[in-house]
Amino acid sequence: MIPILARPLIERKRDGGRIGSGEWRQLMAAYAAGTVPDYQMAALAMAIFFRGLDREETGALTDAMLRSGATLDLDHLGTPRLDKHSTGGVGDKVSLVLAPLIASLGVAVPMMSGRGLGHTGGTLDKLESIPGFRTGLSLAEATRQLETLGCALIGQTGEIAPADRKLYALRDATGTVECIPLIAASIMSKKLAEGLTGLVLDVKFGSGAFLPEKERGLDLARTMIELGADHGCPVIALLTAMDRPLGRACGNAVEVEESIMALRGEGPPDLMRVTYALGAEMLLLAGVVKDRDEARRRMEVAISSGKAVEHFQRIIEAQGGDPRVVDDPGLLPEAPECEVFAAPRGGVVAEVKPRAVGHGIIALGGGRTKVDDVVDPAVGFVIMARPGDVVKAGEPLATIYARDEAGVAAGRAALAEAIVVADEAPPPLPLIANRITEAGVEDYLEG
Amino acid sequence: MIPILARPLIERKRDGGRIGSGEWRQLMAAYAAGTVPDYQMAALAMAIFFRGLDREETGALTDAMLRSGATLDLDHLGTPRLDKHSTGGVGDKVSLVLAPLIASLGVAVPMMSGRGLGHTGGTLDKLESIPGFRTGLSLAEATRQLETLGCALIGQTGEIAPADRKLYALRDATGTVECIPLIAASIMSKKLAEGLTGLVLDVKFGSGAFLPEKERGLDLARTMIELGADHGCPVIALLTAMDRPLGRACGNAVEVEESIMALRGEGPPDLMRVTYALGAEMLLLAGVVKDRDEARRRMEVAISSGKAVEHFQRIIEAQGGDPRVVDDPGLLPEAPECEVFAAPRGGVVAEVKPRAVGHGIIALGGGRTKVDDVVDPAVGFVIMARPGDVVKAGEPLATIYARDEAGVAAGRAALAEAIVVADEAPPPLPLIANRITEAGVEDYLEG
Repeated sequence: MIPILARPLIERKRDGGRIGSGEWRQLMAAYAAGTVPDYQMAALAMAIFFRGLDREETGALTDAMLRSGATLDLDHLGTPRLDKHSTGGVGDKVSLVLAPLIASLGVAVPMMSGRGLGHTGGTLDKLESIPGFRTGLSLAEATRQLETLGCALIGQTGEIAPADRKLYALRDATGTVECIPLIAASIMSKKLAEGLTGLVLDVKFGSGAFLPEKERGLDLARTMIELGADHGCPVIALLTAMDRPLGRACGNAVEVEESIMALRGEGPPDLMRVTYALGAEMLLLAGVVKDRDEARRRMEVAISSGKAVEHFQRIIEAQGGDPRVVDDPGLLPEAPECEVFAAPRGGVVAEVKPRAVGHGIIALGGGRTKVDDVVDPAVGFVIMARPGDVVKAGEPLATIYARDEAGVAAGRAALAEAIVVADEAPPPLPLIANRITEAGVEDYLEG
Repeated sequence: MIPILARPLIERKRDGGRIGSGEWRQLMAAYAAGTVPDYQMAALAMAIFFRGLDREETGALTDAMLRSGATLDLDHLGTPRLDKHSTGGVGDKVSLVLAPLIASLGVAVPMMSGRGLGHTGGTLDKLESIPGFRTGLSLAEATRQLETLGCALIGQTGEIAPADRKLYALRDATGTVECIPLIAASIMSKKLAEGLTGLVLDVKFGSGAFLPEKERGLDLARTMIELGADHGCPVIALLTAMDRPLGRACGNAVEVEESIMALRGEGPPDLMRVTYALGAEMLLLAGVVKDRDEARRRMEVAISSGKAVEHFQRIIEAQGGDPRVVDDPGLLPEAPECEVFAAPRGGVVAEVKPRAVGHGIIALGGGRTKVDDVVDPAVGFVIMARPGDVVKAGEPLATIYARDEAGVAAGRAALAEAIVVADEAPPPLPLIANRITEAGVEDYLEG
């Protein structure tokens, strides 16, 4: 029966028509159940790539995927529940800092993250570099941990939005990933399953971003904000730069170490600015602060008092990880080989290309080209050089952490491509360019 | 390995790029072998629907599908080898008349046909209404019959263009049928497998055609002509009307009976005009006549002398059918129920809608909505009324042949929708509107 149903829907979308809410529900339920085959869904996804989905359709698809699985019911917590989602980048460890920081301030953070793929890293991979850390909590376990610690750092379980999980894998194989309504519906179906009262979105733009063009990032932000508004989950987005890595550490264990430093107040300035900016939006959406200044002060106190880093330690312990890594990062996996990468000439650092760095991590064994690749947690880079830095020939720009000599060589080649020293540097993108709300797009002014 | 190959090709086509000839060959071989999954091919087909294929790509896809299977090698026949392909219609039994007629004139006709689907009928279904007739000849059997009779009427065996067969079924399920380069490549991959020296294409236009708009029909004709030119198989196309059924009989056995009458010189005028026009193009392409007049005279003689109908009889016998049907059409399956359909009012026949007639045949059990439906050979319509005819209320317009009373009722309802009697009739489409060759499109002038 269902193949007969699916073809007219494919044809209608192909010809520029709409698919109704009831049709989306039936279709996605049948797809999750396997009665609509992958090949029909692949054709539909490609038709959507060309024809798009309107606001109501995107909402209906989101709903349909959300309803294909279980959801977290967290009303009994009695606290606001906020999450942050990033479209992904290189060196983007904000989630690791932000989740314990915000949870330490009494706002629940049910954070569901993904794994790295291609040049971008993934929060789950980073967390799993902590010895013993389990990201595969069941919804029941996650709920209990949210009750006690106000935070759980988990992956998309088989229980949550299985239709999305299946569609995402299909899109990855069929060239239908870069489609804004499908991206928005995929993210939002998972986020709504977390039972959030608000969501802050970090939309990356620039050469290392998933959607490099600023306009496309803005489109995604607007689509997500509409989706949130239509589902009682307010969304606010910041557009942040991904024309260079965020912070210095790029890899897995090295990023955990930098995150711990950040929670101790010793993080690199760009990482802290983005973390505070997103954190302030979370606290504002939670309604626990009156303005951004107050939010900033409360986050600074949580860090300087040690409350934030202690909270991270408790979360690590609760999820089976070795809590001692917080005091002794030497307990994190360490790479056997380590080499300094020096400036090939004097001049100004013109670029630190995030895609080249990300591909370097893959070459070291710390990333994935396929979903089932195994990730080496110990390898990566710490890049001290920032665009605009004046450097002398032979000056250390970065450290390569590798499994073996071949890895060192691959890392060296990647950094030689990634770090451009020239006579002058173009101005980098503004770190935080815009703030997007239902009211529209505004320039972001840091206070 | 292949899924890694296919995704970049999908993405390239999606973004408006080209797929190279070697890539097409690898891709279609992998698809036929099952290492490129249906879902990737479905996404690619939809991307092609939106982005198209250029002449070289269409040719490469055709080649790739052709090479996925076996071909007829008929060079040793020493005769020209011509086929006719129609884009499909209602009452279109031209193939049944044309194949024996042309073969009786010493031109080989290796004719590979399809089955009916939706509102259009299929030559194989019609032939199989002849008791015992086998269309499932192997290529070796077809070759032997071409050696002895110069004609074989067969279906697409598993040996021929299996990649096309698989892709066609996929397109049918994924809303990617109505795409001219894919249609042209599909037809041509099979026609080239017949080892033709030329092909005549009957492109239908009007409400009952697969591509109703004349411009789309012309596009298909041009694409096929280019494909043929690039593969050493000259193609000439006629654009013919499908705003009403062709001839009077619409069904399976009833169309065989009308075809036999046509081969005896007693066919309805519109059927004869289209048959002679297409036949003349075949004889011209074969190089056995110097002009259309000579072609017409030779075909008329073949019919009036009985040579053409005798040739049909020998083909029927060779393919296991009962040759006596030619002399006694009463041996064809006969419907138990038969009812005259009368004019509901006086006036002019304004329309005989082919789609409504085709759907009526399905309602009677004589057509297919799914490829595995079983067809009742005996049912159908004989429609005497032609657009423009002046009729009186109660005057017989058609005869319904049905399996049972319910069928009669369904047939009555279908004809009530199909045959419109009004105060005046719009002018029908010209029966043969255009002749399309490599040189361009010309108006068709009947001599």
